[in-house]
Order: sequence, then structure tokens, then C-alpha cells
Amino acid sequence: MDIKNLRINGRRLQDAMEEMARIGKTPAGGVQRLTLSDEDRQARDLFVKWLREMDLAIMIDEMGNIFGKRPGKNNDLSPVMAGSHIDSQPKGGRFDGILGVMGALEVLRTIHDNTIETERPIIIVDWTNEEGSRFAPAVLGSGVWTGTWEKDWVYSRTDIHGKRFGEELERIGYRGRLPAKKWPVHAYYEYHIEQGPVLEREGKVIGAPKGIVCIHWYDVYVKGTANQVGPTPMEGRNDALCASAEMILKVNETATKTDGNLVATVGEIHNSPNSRNIIPDKVHFTVDIRSWDDELVIRAWDEMRKGFDAIAEQRGCPIRIEETWKVKHTPFDEKLVKRVLETAQQLGYPNRPMVSGAGHDAGYLSMVAPTAMIFVPSIGGRSHVEVENTSWEDCEAGANVLLHCILQSALEK
Amino acid sequence: MDIKNLRINGRRLQDAMEEMARIGKTPAGGVQRLTLSDEDRQARDLFVKWLREMDLAIMIDEMGNIFGKRPGKNNDLSPVMAGSHIDSQPKGGRFDGILGVMGALEVLRTIHDNTIETERPIIIVDWTNEEGSRFAPAVLGSGVWTGTWEKDWVYSRTDIHGKRFGEELERIGYRGRLPAKKWPVHAYYEYHIEQGPVLEREGKVIGAPKGIVCIHWYDVYVKGTANQVGPTPMEGRNDALCASAEMILKVNETATKTDGNLVATVGEIHNSPNSRNIIPDKVHFTVDIRSWDDELVIRAWDEMRKGFDAIAEQRGCPIRIEETWKVKHTPFDEKLVKRVLETAQQLGYPNRPMVSGAGHDAGYLSMVAPTAMIFVPSIGGRSHVEVENTSWEDCEAGANVLLHCILQSALEK
Repeated sequence: MDIKNLRINGRRLQDAMEEMARIGKTPAGGVQRLTLSDEDRQARDLFVKWLREMDLAIMIDEMGNIFGKRPGKNNDLSPVMAGSHIDSQPKGGRFDGILGVMGALEVLRTIHDNTIETERPIIIVDWTNEEGSRFAPAVLGSGVWTGTWEKDWVYSRTDIHGKRFGEELERIGYRGRLPAKKWPVHAYYEYHIEQGPVLEREGKVIGAPKGIVCIHWYDVYVKGTANQVGPTPMEGRNDALCASAEMILKVNETATKTDGNLVATVGEIHNSPNSRNIIPDKVHFTVDIRSWDDELVIRAWDEMRKGFDAIAEQRGCPIRIEETWKVKHTPFDEKLVKRVLETAQQLGYPNRPMVSGAGHDAGYLSMVAPTAMIFVPSIGGRSHVEVENTSWEDCEAGANVLLHCILQSALEK
Repeated sequence: MDIKNLRINGRRLQDAMEEMARIGKTPAGGVQRLTLSDEDRQARDLFVKWLREMDLAIMIDEMGNIFGKRPGKNNDLSPVMAGSHIDSQPKGGRFDGILGVMGALEVLRTIHDNTIETERPIIIVDWTNEEGSRFAPAVLGSGVWTGTWEKDWVYSRTDIHGKRFGEELERIGYRGRLPAKKWPVHAYYEYHIEQGPVLEREGKVIGAPKGIVCIHWYDVYVKGTANQVGPTPMEGRNDALCASAEMILKVNETATKTDGNLVATVGEIHNSPNSRNIIPDKVHFTVDIRSWDDELVIRAWDEMRKGFDAIAEQRGCPIRIEETWKVKHTPFDEKLVKRVLETAQQLGYPNRPMVSGAGHDAGYLSMVAPTAMIFVPSIGGRSHVEVENTSWEDCEAGANVLLHCILQSALEK
């Protein structure tokens, strides 16, 4: 057969996805498969079983990252890699992460069934703890593998019950011996749901992010004066919640007027004493700002901060700000991004370049290897929720793009 | 001696207050003496011991309300009553409640030491659970005594550890046999700190509230759409926290423009999922509105509610509102309020009429007996906090006003 006509088996992909969705299934139709939980182990066991069925060489490193290697004609050449993560958010969806692993599995099954010989080895990967919901921060497996984090520091991270990452990794039997250390990679592809509404709104099937936005996290602490609400006149109050409400709207307005070039969100707020009849005197809220344009974030944050200062002054509520996290935007490999778009085009799938608003393992990978991602539509733009959904047709389309991108890279000498 | 020249002993009042402040003392200089706690029992025991020293007839009713009765010349006449509550807020202050009990105690000691005979009996009272912080709602002791609440319902109220009011009352040994049922009262005086900044700002020493404001409580539930913050554009978001922030400011603005005739506060907010990188989809906040003018509250709430609807519509975040509590304003007895002001004037204390923005046992008492309150300044207007403070000089002044108000009422045939 002409390799150009090769297609993955959409039905088999769906079956694999559905079997995985049963592990950690929630009553509302989502999935809860927290990192290093029993559900994570169960899903890993199934994944490894499927890798064995194709006689892949299985490697598990000290971080619990699972690799399955299919040899090429020339195993001295650096491999092509593809994968994502098996873990989920608490009450998360059935597609986030797992689609990239099952998509790569389906690609390898297709290559295996058709006994296609590639020049380079192909490695499928499941990265440990992408979500970071149980053990913060996120994206730890690929973070250690690419040299950003220290293994021992990650081992010492604890969940809310005080359980340590290292011990939980050992407990589920996935603490491997292979050092979690990068090797040369010819190309890394990560297939993922978009987690936003852009593709669906525009009727596109495939998105090729040119990279991941920069992310700034701030923690804002607002101080007011607690008092009995009844006897305290409005005039002269220092209401920390009113001051925070103004600041939250300042964040929202500043982002909204950038016309889609920046998003900013207050997702978390803690109010104290949080009593119906006491004026709030302590509020802590978070700010998350993201954009492809690092400079735009700096300017927007500057504007927000000036707004905060004016509100704090006017309300008599002094603020303290902590800069919690700051990463620059991560561009992917231009050649590979172009390949994703061209492949989608050749396969007849409407497509568009875009940016990824969320972090992914591909972010770390792009620091050490040419990297690209393939996005498929999220229905209603919903993600990290139990109703997260993508049509099986789109899942199949994305896997076909992944197949031909991997083949092109793996056939390169 | 001419009874007009009689004065209480300020030093002795201070000593009693300081001894009480040691029971449940907090490191930051406040008091935590929750209803029916061991600290409450300890303070009650001390109070009862002091009542016995004056040979008062001690009565404890089924609600744990403690009464100490000093006979008059004609014990067929209805008594004059005075008192307040011994219990405190969690991490509360050293004056709220206890000043009214120790003030009345000092008045009785002064009358006792001077062997003054009154026409009518005088009863000092400690009402159980005014604060309502451990067992909700508040003002339960006087609420049952005046016939507003049922004893058995109150007994079944539980604290956050599931302990029942009735069992805790039994445990601390203050479940009396006397039915908690009102008797005719000639006049009820309650001496209390202002808990607001008005007297201090105007350099007044004595305030005579003409009554207690009306209080409306609402619970507002705002529904948005949860999503990953990064990939979700600003446009089309349904951010429940942004909608709530606008509503909180609407509450604040509506109250502020009434020029001091109404206060409104959002004291409590719960945000869900309250995660830094997820757009909030569920917010619950409370609204507390108070005014002397019931109609003004109804109009203000109507304006807030219309504002909420417009915000909900514009942000795509539907709301649900629960009306949680609603009491009309409570006027005190005009003659007694006038007496408080005139007595303060005669004693040379700068004074003013005002309204009470907070609820008190006097609120229930005024439903069954002529009632008035005596307020003294709260330093910085602070209350329900550990730094709550009132000068000893002002404490003495208030007790002198209480003394002469009680004497006037008790000398009436």
C-alpha cells in the first residue's frame, strides 16, 4: 500500500479511550485518576499491557515516566517521540491527557499492523503528574526528564494527606531504575484536546499551536478593618472584600480590552473572617495572566497593579503582592508546526495555527527537542470538568494527523 | 445622703471587669467565652458568687438565664430589670455583653452598700447565648424567655462538633428548673458598648438608642461556567466571581448613597472550585442590610436586586436568591430613652440619641416591657475583635447613668 493512504483505526482508538475512561470513572461521566493513585496504577498497568502486545521495549524511569520503544532501521538515530499523560484532574474529563497517549498507541498499532519499517525508532511516552492536582506543581515528570526539576525535590512533595510523591510512586510499583534524564530526540509530537472554544467556533478540526503562552501568577493580600456591620457606618469603612471586588473587575477589564491577545483570571479567593455580620478584614486572591506576548503581560500587569494601588488607597485597604510563578512564552518548532498544518491539509481536515493557552509536557520538551502539538476541538470549549468532550470523529482525525507527522519524522534519515 | 449624689465605684467596676476578662483571656488581649463552654461556666460561677455576697435571691431558668433579685418595699410591684450577657464572640473583646452585667452588678453593690430601699424589686440578669457564635441563631436566652423561640427547639441546636445546646447546658450545671417564661417587668435597662464609632467621633460619652434597626439577610447564589483559564478567551466567559464582584460593589454603592441612613455588607463569600487556573462557576455570598427605616431597606434591596439581575444577564451568570432572615426595626420605650438622656445630662456627661445597629437582648425585652439601652463609646469603633476597648472613665459614666435610671424606675410606686 501507498503509505500516504494509511489511516488509523478510529473504532479501535475509541475502544481504547472508553476502556481507559472506565478507570476512575465518576458518576457524572468524567474521570478522576489522580497522579500515583490506585486508578493511575490501574491505567498504567493497562497501558503497559498494550505496549507489550506490540513487543515494544518498555522502559520506566525514576519518575515513573513510561516509555515504549519500537526499533527503527537505524537505532543509532535519535528517536521520534509522542505521548502525553494518563493522570487527570479531580472530577476531570475523559480526554485531557489520555487522548495523546491513546492516540500515539493507536498510531503505533497502525504502524505495527502494517509492518511499516521506519528509519528512526519511535517512542511512545506517558509522563507522570502532568496535572499537578495531587502533587504541586504540575508537569513534573517531563520537568525532571528535561532537567528543570530535581528528582529528590519532587520525591519530597506531599499531597494534602501528607503522603510523599516518592513513597506513592514506590507504592504503585512505578518507581523505575532508569535515570529520568533526557536523551536526544529527533521530534516530539503531543496530541491533545484544545481545552478552549476556538476550533469549534470556527469549524476547524485540527489546530497547530505555535507554542505555549507565557504564564504569570500573582497572589494579592488585601487588608481592611474588621467590625460589626450594624453599628459601623458606610463612611470610613475599610472593607477588604469591596476593595478586592474592584481589583477583580480591574483584572477582568484590563484583559478584556486587549481584544483576545491576553487572558487574565481571578480563580481563587479567601475572605476572612468570612462571617455574615463582620466587615471583611483579610482577603487573599490570585491573578493568572497569559499571553503569547510577554511584553503585553508585563504592561497589563503594570496597569492592574496601578489600579490596585489606587483602589487600596481609596478604600484604605493596603495590599501586599507576591509574584508566585512566571514563565515566558514557549515557541514550538516552526518546521514541525508547519508539518502539522500541512498534514491536516493533505488529509482534508480544516485547520488553523493558534496558541496553546494551557501548559503541557510539550512545553518542557520544546526546551530540549523540536516539538509540536496537535489540537482537536473541545465541545463547548469545556475542559477540566466532567462534561469535557470531543467527537470520536475529531479524535480519529487528530490521530491520523499524528500518524503522518510521526511517519514523516521517523522516515527522515 | 442625698440620693442624687450617689455614684458607683468605678475602681470596683474595673476590678470586676478585669477579673471577668481573665476567664477565656486570649493571647492578643481579647476574650473567648463561648456559650455553655467551660469558660462560660467559670464566669457564671463567679457572677453567682458575687450575687450571693449581696444576699440576692438567685433564680436560674431552663435556658440557663441567671437572675439575682433584690427585694423592694413592695414586692407585689413588677420589678426593674437590668443586665446583658456573659458569653462572647470567638476571639471577641473584653467589653461586649459583660459590661452590661458587671455594670448592673456594680449598681446593685452601690445600692446594697448604701442600704437604699426601693419601692420595687430590682433584678439583675445574665441572658444565655446572646452571641449565637457557637449555637445559632443569636439572642436565644431572652428569645425563649420573651416567648419568641421554643425551649425544646433551642435545646436541639448543635455546635460545629455536633454537641447539643440542651446537653451542654446540663453539662455546665446551668439547666435550671424555673420555666423560661416572661414575668411583668416595670422597666428593663441594658448597658452596652456602642460597637460603632459615632460617640467617639462626636466626643459624646453616653448614647441612648431609640431602638434597634431592622435587619434583612439574603443569600445569593451565582452560577457561571467553569473552564481552564488559559485556553478560554475573555469573550464569552461566564465568570461567576466577576459577576459577584460587580454585585458586591452594587450592594456597597447602594448603601453608601443613602447618606448614613442604611448600611449594607457582604461579609461572607464562597467561591467554587476556587482553583487558581479554573474560571469560577459557583459563588455564594451573603447580604446584610440594616436601617431604622424599614421602607428604605425594602427600596434599597429592590435596587440591589435589579442591579443583580442586570449583571447576571450581562455576564451570563444566572442567580438564585434566598431570603434568610428579616426583622423589622424595634423602637424602645420613649419615656425610658428620654430618661437615659436626661440622666446623662444631669450627671454632666455629653450625650446623644442614636440607633443601635446591632441586635441585643433588649430587642426581645422591648416586646414585653418598657426598655432602654445605655451606650458608651467603643475606642476606634472596634467590636467583636480582640482589640475592642472602652476607657474605664466611660465605663464608670455609663454605670452611673444606669444607677440613676434604675433608681428612678425602682422608686416609682
